[in-house]
Amino acid sequence: MKKQNERMSVTGMKNSRTVELEKIIKSRTAVLDSALDHYLPSENAPPQSLHKAMRYSVFAGGKRIRPMLTLLTAELFTREHETAIPPACAIEFIHTYSLIHDDLPAMDDDDYRRGKPTSHKMFGEGLAVLAGDALLTLAFEILSAPVFTEGPGRKYWERVPSERKLQLFFEIARAAGVKGMVGGQVMDLEAEGKKPRTDLLDTMNDLKTGALLTASMRSGALAAGCGPEELDKVTAFALLLGRAFQVVDDLLDVEGDAGKMGKAKGADAHKKKASYVSCCGLQETREIRDRLYVRAVRELESLGKGTGALRTLTDFIFYRDF
Amino acid sequence: MKKQNERMSVTGMKNSRTVELEKIIKSRTAVLDSALDHYLPSENAPPQSLHKAMRYSVFAGGKRIRPMLTLLTAELFTREHETAIPPACAIEFIHTYSLIHDDLPAMDDDDYRRGKPTSHKMFGEGLAVLAGDALLTLAFEILSAPVFTEGPGRKYWERVPSERKLQLFFEIARAAGVKGMVGGQVMDLEAEGKKPRTDLLDTMNDLKTGALLTASMRSGALAAGCGPEELDKVTAFALLLGRAFQVVDDLLDVEGDAGKMGKAKGADAHKKKASYVSCCGLQETREIRDRLYVRAVRELESLGKGTGALRTLTDFIFYRDF
Repeated sequence: MKKQNERMSVTGMKNSRTVELEKIIKSRTAVLDSALDHYLPSENAPPQSLHKAMRYSVFAGGKRIRPMLTLLTAELFTREHETAIPPACAIEFIHTYSLIHDDLPAMDDDDYRRGKPTSHKMFGEGLAVLAGDALLTLAFEILSAPVFTEGPGRKYWERVPSERKLQLFFEIARAAGVKGMVGGQVMDLEAEGKKPRTDLLDTMNDLKTGALLTASMRSGALAAGCGPEELDKVTAFALLLGRAFQVVDDLLDVEGDAGKMGKAKGADAHKKKASYVSCCGLQETREIRDRLYVRAVRELESLGKGTGALRTLTDFIFYRDF
Repeated sequence: MKKQNERMSVTGMKNSRTVELEKIIKSRTAVLDSALDHYLPSENAPPQSLHKAMRYSVFAGGKRIRPMLTLLTAELFTREHETAIPPACAIEFIHTYSLIHDDLPAMDDDDYRRGKPTSHKMFGEGLAVLAGDALLTLAFEILSAPVFTEGPGRKYWERVPSERKLQLFFEIARAAGVKGMVGGQVMDLEAEGKKPRTDLLDTMNDLKTGALLTASMRSGALAAGCGPEELDKVTAFALLLGRAFQVVDDLLDVEGDAGKMGKAKGADAHKKKASYVSCCGLQETREIRDRLYVRAVRELESLGKGTGALRTLTDFIFYRDF
């Protein structure tokens, strides 16, 4: 937290304002957790084992950064920000599915995530694959559910025109697929043991992390009825945030707080993963992050008033220690 | 083919008509293959390995029963049956993803399908999981793609109202998820080594196979603008067809043509899978099939004229030997 506070004082944010913004984020996290709970199938309904596995990973201590971005972006453009709850949940389910599959023995082979056993360690590989499949499918089910379906945010979401829902749907699907997250994950698998150039690393991370992060913000904006010019600004900011996200992840693997992260440091080096640190060294990676931060803040400011909570989240993303 | 021909003569179909209908089905298969090829990412675009794995399984000799049902159902209600090509392709991609994941060592652990090595044997487990993930996501990408996207059937698909597209989308997503295919697959995994009652077997198979098969037909009907009454009839027929599909699959595992199927018989018994044969014996399973056939034909006839090709496909599904 030290670094984050330093950065906040450098950028002139007052402590009481920071506390207020952190409260906003906390209250939104509670809204999201309750909505995720609502949209997930009950543990009492069959097949219980599948529903249990889905719920285990969704509630395994994720930071909710993506759905929070969806909500906070919607809030820039409408008071009825609950309209963004269904896409926010869909995106969190897609993110969770990707973690379950990435952790599998055939991929990153991770036994722990956020201090807890990974899905396949808890439930076996077969069920882990299926829990991931089910979460990905559930995301699309929520987005297309008929208007009479009950659920958090449903009242406002109903008013989103069908054309816009389809657009939002398409952006999320594309961001999750071969031209986004899955494509990036394949590049990541194939880059292991190699030392790629920075531009290749940028492309890989833009796909693996940036695409869904950008879709998170764009779908919040679209659900809120934002116009094309503002959507461009949101996109420009989101791309920088997405890039930074992976840069910071690579830094954390070297200098993060292992206790808070719930996993050992040094995994990238051990698995010979292609990372910014292995590619450019620690100091240069820090400088890449700081340069991205300056640009991101500029883009965010261009969006005008009401960006306080997004700024707090941005500061956290750039200077977190877990 | 002997049984199929017998059945056809019993039901009074003439040979020249049968030949004509088989020609129709053949021409639709060519249309579908070309559309699937169009919607899949190119093997020359990165990441090539992923695209290669996706294409390998889609073109591994599938019978195209589901997308054919989508097209033929649309044809009952419109001359512009090409409107059903995008959902038909989406459904075939979902079906293919499910086969790739089902074949994984952690699930059915199959090395061969249709006489060819399964995806994980060809490309490794990591890429097989990701190829499945990518195909599932691509299905939803196609369904939501903006109207300006080029592609087979796109011209007619554009005219489908957005509300109806969302409905179609929802039905497919639900059929593929926890209340459909994935839910059924989990029940299947958990039933291994047990001898379930027939009603449990029915539920499992309705989820695992029936749900997507019903969605195949309903989405063809919806894309073609079919009304609620006719949609109910389509659904009643599809549910019987879906039930029969699994009954016949279980029979084939005992008395099918191993050469045509491209896999060894007796796998269900070897893996102690819950099947109709293990549950009710061979003779009773045959009778279940025959009773379903009579009901299915009655439902199909209630749909009126133009059902010839669907009847040919029905005869094949009930009395195939591979």
